[in-house]
Amino acid sequence: MPIASQIKKYMADSSWIRRMFELGIAMKRERGDNNVFDLSLGNPVMEPPPEFIAEMRRLLDDLPAGSHRYMPNAGYTDTRAAVASALAEETGLAYEAEHVMMTVGAGGGINAVLHALCEPGDEVVIFAPFFAEYLFYALNHGATCVTVGCDVEFTPSLVELESKITSRTKVVMINSPNNPSGRVYTAEFIRNLGLLLQRKGKELGTEIYLLSDEPYRKIIFDNQLYPFPQRTYDKTITVTSHSKDLALPGERIGYVAVHPGYEASEELMDAFVFCNRVLGFVNAPAMMQHAVRALQHVTVDVSDYERKRDYLYQVLTEAGYRVFKPEGAFYMFPQSPVGDEMVLVEALQRHGVLVVPGRGFGMPGYFRISYCVEQHVLEGAAPGFQAAAKELRSKS
Amino acid sequence: MPIASQIKKYMADSSWIRRMFELGIAMKRERGDNNVFDLSLGNPVMEPPPEFIAEMRRLLDDLPAGSHRYMPNAGYTDTRAAVASALAEETGLAYEAEHVMMTVGAGGGINAVLHALCEPGDEVVIFAPFFAEYLFYALNHGATCVTVGCDVEFTPSLVELESKITSRTKVVMINSPNNPSGRVYTAEFIRNLGLLLQRKGKELGTEIYLLSDEPYRKIIFDNQLYPFPQRTYDKTITVTSHSKDLALPGERIGYVAVHPGYEASEELMDAFVFCNRVLGFVNAPAMMQHAVRALQHVTVDVSDYERKRDYLYQVLTEAGYRVFKPEGAFYMFPQSPVGDEMVLVEALQRHGVLVVPGRGFGMPGYFRISYCVEQHVLEGAAPGFQAAAKELRSKS
Repeated sequence: MPIASQIKKYMADSSWIRRMFELGIAMKRERGDNNVFDLSLGNPVMEPPPEFIAEMRRLLDDLPAGSHRYMPNAGYTDTRAAVASALAEETGLAYEAEHVMMTVGAGGGINAVLHALCEPGDEVVIFAPFFAEYLFYALNHGATCVTVGCDVEFTPSLVELESKITSRTKVVMINSPNNPSGRVYTAEFIRNLGLLLQRKGKELGTEIYLLSDEPYRKIIFDNQLYPFPQRTYDKTITVTSHSKDLALPGERIGYVAVHPGYEASEELMDAFVFCNRVLGFVNAPAMMQHAVRALQHVTVDVSDYERKRDYLYQVLTEAGYRVFKPEGAFYMFPQSPVGDEMVLVEALQRHGVLVVPGRGFGMPGYFRISYCVEQHVLEGAAPGFQAAAKELRSKS
Repeated sequence: MPIASQIKKYMADSSWIRRMFELGIAMKRERGDNNVFDLSLGNPVMEPPPEFIAEMRRLLDDLPAGSHRYMPNAGYTDTRAAVASALAEETGLAYEAEHVMMTVGAGGGINAVLHALCEPGDEVVIFAPFFAEYLFYALNHGATCVTVGCDVEFTPSLVELESKITSRTKVVMINSPNNPSGRVYTAEFIRNLGLLLQRKGKELGTEIYLLSDEPYRKIIFDNQLYPFPQRTYDKTITVTSHSKDLALPGERIGYVAVHPGYEASEELMDAFVFCNRVLGFVNAPAMMQHAVRALQHVTVDVSDYERKRDYLYQVLTEAGYRVFKPEGAFYMFPQSPVGDEMVLVEALQRHGVLVVPGRGFGMPGYFRISYCVEQHVLEGAAPGFQAAAKELRSKS
């Protein structure tokens, strides 16, 4: 058997998102592109903002010799400084270049962080519903995930969290705005989470890190403000990418930032940079580091996502679905009208609509819709949502 | 203690190359840039070929919408097809797109491969002298490295290899042209290696993969031909990057290719793609995938490296060093005039010349010179090489 047994096993239970993606390709071949409405993948249909293309052109004219060579594994100092300065402005904390490492997307950043922190057998707490790749990210480095549930509006249960923190808890991961629920955790929740981790860390005499995965931080609706966890808790490690805010997911450019006030921030950063190197990332792509330096204050047009949210929310609620109105990101996570969401997912498939079952996010009974698609795809999917809900209601 | 204990330990024994790099920065600050000759890092001073810049400009004008989005984790089909076609031309084997996965450099590719293949406790055989990162790459995935020695001309010992292959041997890694020795393994060696692995695999009833790490494949001198291991051995996995042949090390673009004739090639590729995803690489940077598509037949000016090799070889041999004349890559690996190469390394430092001790490559008693620098740096280092040799001879 050529493949390692654990990898074979992981591949077998692997991503629902990917399975839906492949099913979508097969369905399009069979039924024609215009009759399949693929809402399974978080691959933004939006183009990068014009500032990005302009900056790339400028760079090709202006870049000095050596601009595609290796640089220090943490990235270019001026790019790190630009990120730090924007982060300082947003948070009011004294971020500087030394607190930032440029990474191969957020996925690369999370892996570098977990590789640096986790001993075999350590525990990483994640909140359901969660991005399923977190399970693999923990396993990659010998850690295991412990899952904590949430209330009906997708706010994680701090009571359950408290009961699940042990002396092996190395990292608690949050993802707000949340994929798949679209929830932006409230300032109150974020503050209480920080206070709880402080208290438990003291009680247990351990360092518990809060890994805040924030790729959707700038995609927030209704003029809400983003509550920064590092304002309460100095063991916060921020990981994000420009995949969504600059619509560059294929380019793999993101960063990790440590809290400027945390006493061991230099030690952490040294370890992250080392792990970024030895995991084979080496450094974030040079050209993208050059490009995002000047784009820290640029974001895609969020109002476009907001309009799509409003449209889809109306379609779903009118069709009788129970759904939380997202506050950010570009996903919706409605409850299935029948307990086994696979029945709903299959009914939607018969109508040419592809969504991802909630079990792929640790929450059976729900399903995820990705609405970062063209408006005509959403409109095309609407009759399918209505018909599937009607069918299932008439059967139950 | 915030950092995982094993990572702390690895960091403590970490790269000599990096230590020299940092020492160089400190020395330059102290003595002035012009009095320090840093030959420690394999960071090519050469610029990417003009075809690269031209192609980037063309792409910015011509790229269709969606060109920075996620694509399948293996990369763009047309880029994979272009790589496969060039590889088919070079090797005479029937590579097609499905046999190629685009990666975040060779480092990213090797990690995806080892993650897919290695169970905890598996062994990865490497040949001294070796690129020290291999040790970490194996450890990342629960495997350990087993080292095999070489003769005076840096050809690995197949007798020793045979004695060290066990039922836990999952991968044998080669790196030719070799970093640090500059050796290009001969066609005869490569054939015998393949035959040995075939025989041992049959004997033990195991699959032993030959991971051929080839970032210097196109940097070969004296019109030598590169002997392709996959011509003999179908369990060969090719990993390379465009870091050296297109001088793009900061851009992190490379690929993994499986043998088109190997019966389990599809199974291998599926696992590599999965591991590329879950390790957080996700995909090779999109823009660079677009760029290298049309550049598979372009290479930096190798004659420049060849001239530098000739110059440095003459300097060193005239100063009395015993050194193998490199056949490729851009490193030289001379013997230290005294047994403990740290004495020589420190003597060179006093003369402002930075090299890396051979113990960093599994071969104490030697030292590595990286000559991918400006000619004036090599010329500036020449008196230091002469003086250090003289000093050590007079003491011994």
